[in-house]
Amino acid sequence: MQFYQEGFHPGDPKITDPADRVIAPPLKHPLPQEVDVMIVGCGPAGLNLAAQLSKFASISTCIVEQKDDRLLVGQADGIACRTMEMFEAYDFADQIKQEAYWVNETAFWKPNTEQPEQIARSSKIQDVEDDLSEMPHVIINQARVHDAFLEVMRHGPRKVVPHYSRQLLNLEVDPTVTDYPVTLTFERLDSQHLGVMETVKAKYVVGCDGARSTVRKSIGRKLVGDSISQGWGVMDVLAVTDFPDIRLKSAIHSSNEGNMLIIPREGGYMVRLYIELDKLKNNERLNKQSITTDYLIAAANRIMHPYTIEVKEIAWWSVYEIGQRLTTAFDDAEDGRSPHVFLAGDACHTHSPKAGQGLNTSVNDTWNLGWKLAHVLTERANAELLQSYSFERQTVAQQLIDFDREFSKMFSAKPKSATNPDGVDPTAFQQYFVQFGRFTAGTAIHYPQSDLVSSGQHQCLATGQTIGMRFHSAKVTRQADAKPMHLGHSMKADGRWHILAFAGEQNFMSDTCKVKALCEFLQHNPSSPIQRFTPKDADIDAIINVQAVFQVPHRKIEVADIHSLLQPSKGCHGLKDYEKVYSALCEENSFYDKRRIDKKNGCIIIVRPDQYVADILPLSDYNGVTSFFDRVLIQRA
Amino acid sequence: MQFYQEGFHPGDPKITDPADRVIAPPLKHPLPQEVDVMIVGCGPAGLNLAAQLSKFASISTCIVEQKDDRLLVGQADGIACRTMEMFEAYDFADQIKQEAYWVNETAFWKPNTEQPEQIARSSKIQDVEDDLSEMPHVIINQARVHDAFLEVMRHGPRKVVPHYSRQLLNLEVDPTVTDYPVTLTFERLDSQHLGVMETVKAKYVVGCDGARSTVRKSIGRKLVGDSISQGWGVMDVLAVTDFPDIRLKSAIHSSNEGNMLIIPREGGYMVRLYIELDKLKNNERLNKQSITTDYLIAAANRIMHPYTIEVKEIAWWSVYEIGQRLTTAFDDAEDGRSPHVFLAGDACHTHSPKAGQGLNTSVNDTWNLGWKLAHVLTERANAELLQSYSFERQTVAQQLIDFDREFSKMFSAKPKSATNPDGVDPTAFQQYFVQFGRFTAGTAIHYPQSDLVSSGQHQCLATGQTIGMRFHSAKVTRQADAKPMHLGHSMKADGRWHILAFAGEQNFMSDTCKVKALCEFLQHNPSSPIQRFTPKDADIDAIINVQAVFQVPHRKIEVADIHSLLQPSKGCHGLKDYEKVYSALCEENSFYDKRRIDKKNGCIIIVRPDQYVADILPLSDYNGVTSFFDRVLIQRA
Ligand SMILES: Cc1cc2nc3c(=O)[nH]c(=O)nc-3n(C[C@H](O)[C@H](O)[C@H](O)COP(=O)(O)OP(=O)(O)OC[C@H]3O[C@@H](n4cnc5c(N)ncnc54)[C@H](O)[C@@H]3O)c2cc1C
Ligand SMILES: Cc1cc2nc3c(=O)[nH]c(=O)nc-3n(C[C@H](O)[C@H](O)[C@H](O)COP(=O)(O)OP(=O)(O)OC[C@H]3O[C@@H](n4cnc5c(N)ncnc54)[C@H](O)[C@@H]3O)c2cc1C
Repeated sequence: MQFYQEGFHPGDPKITDPADRVIAPPLKHPLPQEVDVMIVGCGPAGLNLAAQLSKFASISTCIVEQKDDRLLVGQADGIACRTMEMFEAYDFADQIKQEAYWVNETAFWKPNTEQPEQIARSSKIQDVEDDLSEMPHVIINQARVHDAFLEVMRHGPRKVVPHYSRQLLNLEVDPTVTDYPVTLTFERLDSQHLGVMETVKAKYVVGCDGARSTVRKSIGRKLVGDSISQGWGVMDVLAVTDFPDIRLKSAIHSSNEGNMLIIPREGGYMVRLYIELDKLKNNERLNKQSITTDYLIAAANRIMHPYTIEVKEIAWWSVYEIGQRLTTAFDDAEDGRSPHVFLAGDACHTHSPKAGQGLNTSVNDTWNLGWKLAHVLTERANAELLQSYSFERQTVAQQLIDFDREFSKMFSAKPKSATNPDGVDPTAFQQYFVQFGRFTAGTAIHYPQSDLVSSGQHQCLATGQTIGMRFHSAKVTRQADAKPMHLGHSMKADGRWHILAFAGEQNFMSDTCKVKALCEFLQHNPSSPIQRFTPKDADIDAIINVQAVFQVPHRKIEVADIHSLLQPSKGCHGLKDYEKVYSALCEENSFYDKRRIDKKNGCIIIVRPDQYVADILPLSDYNGVTSFFDRVLIQRA
Repeated sequence: MQFYQEGFHPGDPKITDPADRVIAPPLKHPLPQEVDVMIVGCGPAGLNLAAQLSKFASISTCIVEQKDDRLLVGQADGIACRTMEMFEAYDFADQIKQEAYWVNETAFWKPNTEQPEQIARSSKIQDVEDDLSEMPHVIINQARVHDAFLEVMRHGPRKVVPHYSRQLLNLEVDPTVTDYPVTLTFERLDSQHLGVMETVKAKYVVGCDGARSTVRKSIGRKLVGDSISQGWGVMDVLAVTDFPDIRLKSAIHSSNEGNMLIIPREGGYMVRLYIELDKLKNNERLNKQSITTDYLIAAANRIMHPYTIEVKEIAWWSVYEIGQRLTTAFDDAEDGRSPHVFLAGDACHTHSPKAGQGLNTSVNDTWNLGWKLAHVLTERANAELLQSYSFERQTVAQQLIDFDREFSKMFSAKPKSATNPDGVDPTAFQQYFVQFGRFTAGTAIHYPQSDLVSSGQHQCLATGQTIGMRFHSAKVTRQADAKPMHLGHSMKADGRWHILAFAGEQNFMSDTCKVKALCEFLQHNPSSPIQRFTPKDADIDAIINVQAVFQVPHRKIEVADIHSLLQPSKGCHGLKDYEKVYSALCEENSFYDKRRIDKKNGCIIIVRPDQYVADILPLSDYNGVTSFFDRVLIQRA
């Protein structure tokens, strides 16, 4: 899709008239008095959580934002592959794929060896390694991601719409109160209600209120880490240039004029320029206020010499100053008391924009938290489950900060040369970039062992699916309709657990077929987690979704032979769900080969609601399955 | 996507609450007094035309419908691959792909040889042959296709919204009047304006008003052909069955109980049953009124014996009686006078639903007509161009009727057996089915030679792209951003012509490079069609979009070397369009190999605004290019 040729306008570019892209802000209803979950802040972290919770009709969710409307422009724009996989679970990845710029390659530019005052391309590399994810790495205005979440929220079983023009002033937790232990005070900011105060009581509060988080202050957590912030001039521009790689992500190191990152944007014309302020010549810690767009444009032209860029329109710009920091915990838990208040996103960690981790880490925080809150509020799990959020995400955020610090240092350093022998070797930088591709893609996240992530005793049964990491999708063929599709896409943002049974070499649904025996156990044995944790009035797959993959071609699988757990009757009409059985063969590949599943023995893969691999077990290890779920789920009263 | 588990509700299934799926009908504005194009009927033919014309800001389009709101349920549901390719040109193919059922395989059932009163599967075959199209054959409620067109219409440069509750009573053409020769009379049907008459004057009228077309009667055209209509009982149901292929398209021939077609539908649960009424036992030309759903369900159960189907909910049903008929011309042209009134869709041809051609042929009619009307109304072409509509579409419709008649006969005939030696051999039926797969996919359409379709003197330069047939897409890599993509998807529903220059073996943009020389000619030579037919104030690619494909890898192509016609400055800012240069290599395939382009010599392929191949020429045949466009386009005053 091409757009913005006649200038930038916010909103859905499929709508030609910019005036029609405006969405009426929601009515200014008063806040509810009591809610299950109060989310503070409509950034990506908050909106993702609201989207996830909107999938649960029984949970009351309220999301507030101090600004008076949705975001229209600016902030982050890089969407990592793993974040796209999450969007797929919400069914809006296709829409983002269509509208976004795809990062396929990165170009590296450094000083020309002969004429160091001029830059020259040192190389181009593939951006995402083959088969790292079925999703591309894309670039799109953060505002459009917000729009997609807002749509999911509006359309979910529990419709959720933000309350704008509300500023959280403070919150208090009284752990002795059992029903709604948190009290929040808001001030209204819109002209009609200016200064009106509102008090809300909540079971849980999630502070998604950004780097200057009021929630964080209220629970006494502090961002710690680098005190030195890095300053970046960021501009989204429509421009004319002779720089050849203007439609590629390009990292430019000049010899004396500073560094710059070019990020092509959606629509074919717009481009983002990141100019590193501290590295600019003549710039000894420049005063933020004194930086103008003219100043940045001139800097860009000096850096990219001999090429020039003529800016025709500035869609958005900012001076973005940020350090790499982190809070020590992501919640208010103390001495084994389960948390009531959580922090997510920039409220508990901040990143340099270069690795594009701000938005991606933020949404992954609440992706981790969402299903856990839903589990507790729908009485599928005890409140202790909530402690795992800080445990898992704080660890991951620390790794990321470490990586980011290293990466930023390299990025900002001057290139190595005769006069600057301590500088960074551009070749080393590039190798580092490749090595950490998985990190930036979001696919390297590895949660430590816990009740939710097994010790990995049977990891050998599926070496291509690492316990603690996200389930790595590949294509299979669905039996019922012969559809070639990604197995990972059968796992949606609906809070369900998944038991994937990969058949071994035994004949399909024969008496020796271990998948059949497993289904028999799961469906009928009183100790099976399905028997114990599925509410009586719910569909049999409401809590745990059992699916099976066989090594035979899909035409060899007959519906009549399939175990009833794999084609259960559901809903008010008792309709059969036929979408749980797959052939591993698809377009001449086998899922078993691609993801290294033990062909002889098969295995069970337990996948969490957030698509992370929780455990891998032998097909007949019913005990393993039972005890895994015993640690996580509870029987409803 | 799975939906309808708790029963069917019309509208966008991504919206959980059915009440929120309702879209407010447009305001009841009076009809305009004068319009460029008046479209009668909001079926797929009319909506596609309105969507196409909404892309032109200067054309006033009015579309009327006698019903009081958009379609919500029923009618056709099969979307052929070629129709999906067209949807891609409107940028909504992805959305339909996500929501629809994909027809991957077809199952054939016939009487069991041992027990002929029971059916048995005779075979399963792949539905669409490999590489026939990059798009799947899908099934979705016609109403959802309407919704997609309505969205394009609303959002186009010229916003178009239907006028509901208007019935066309008659129209008159006065060919002596030059500006608005057609006068139409409408009666309003909504309670507020009941009986109010409106008169509209139009330059052109397109009758998309279905099989009982008033427009057709007004211009004195008649549907001719089979007088015998075939009757079908059609039901969209949520049902429970033990029929194994319920999620596959299945053609069932029973030995004595009749025939039935099963079409699985979107959402994983719904299914359409087509029951052939004339072939039912005890049914000597049944009275349409006497047919009930109970009757149809009983028949379905008899046909599919020993399997049973228990219907839990009927989302829609109809007795659909239709013959294979056609009008002799699709317009009101006479004695060389150019037409003012056109017929499209069911208004000029009707089909048995089995080959799924009603909707597909209808939208392809107006896909052919839309750009031609836009050409004439924007003064790109003379009114004679409009004569080609009836010429091209009537020919194609006749072929289709012939095919359809044959196909229906085979489908309806009893299977061959000892007692019925004249019956159809199921194996022969199946072979016929395979052979005509291309026909049903919509990719076999071949427009005859005319000013718009060359004689094919140079067909040998690209034997995989047949002149007169649709441009057959394959993947390429876009140079500027290294994006793997379908070349065909660069051609949108915007009324532009395309010159695709496929480079030969000469070095990229060297002095011997014929693509460079062609660009030089096209951009600067006063006789070039771009020089002559592009309005002075328009972008250089506004009328003819020139793109180039090279045989070298994309990294070997340097932006600085690319001819300026292939990276033109556009829009109010003079921004460069970088999306016109491709490498033929993509994922280890070459476009040249896949579509059999002459590697040594390369070629020019001229593609029409409707994506049909108009001509293939040697790269240096400037005369050929010039004279082709001379026959079609005119210079504006
Ligand atoms: C101005 C700006 C520019 C940025 N530029 C870049 C960039 O160029 N590249 C990049 O990668 N990342 C950039 N980021 C960072 C990126 O946008 C964040 O990492 C990402 O948005 C984090 O998401 P979040 O939901 O945690 O917080 P945020 O997106 O910051 O959202 C927090 C929300 O909470 C609201 N809020 C705060 N306090 C209160 C309160 N007391 N009461 C009610 N509401 C409150 C805020 O108004 C805000 O909408 C930028 C961020 C900002 C703010
Ligand atoms: C009841 C029904 C059931 C069908 N079932 C199937 C099926 O099961 N399978 C299948 O493949 N195809 C089916 N079809 C056919 C398929 O829907 C059509 O081939 C396809 O819709 C043709 O598109 P069209 O735009 O040409 O005409 P239509 O979709 O028929 O649209 C014509 C429109 O014009 C309107 N109109 C008519 N006269 C006037 C007037 N005087 N003034 C104003 N408006 C007017 C009508 O209300 C209608 O909305 C069915 C059609 C109908 C009507």
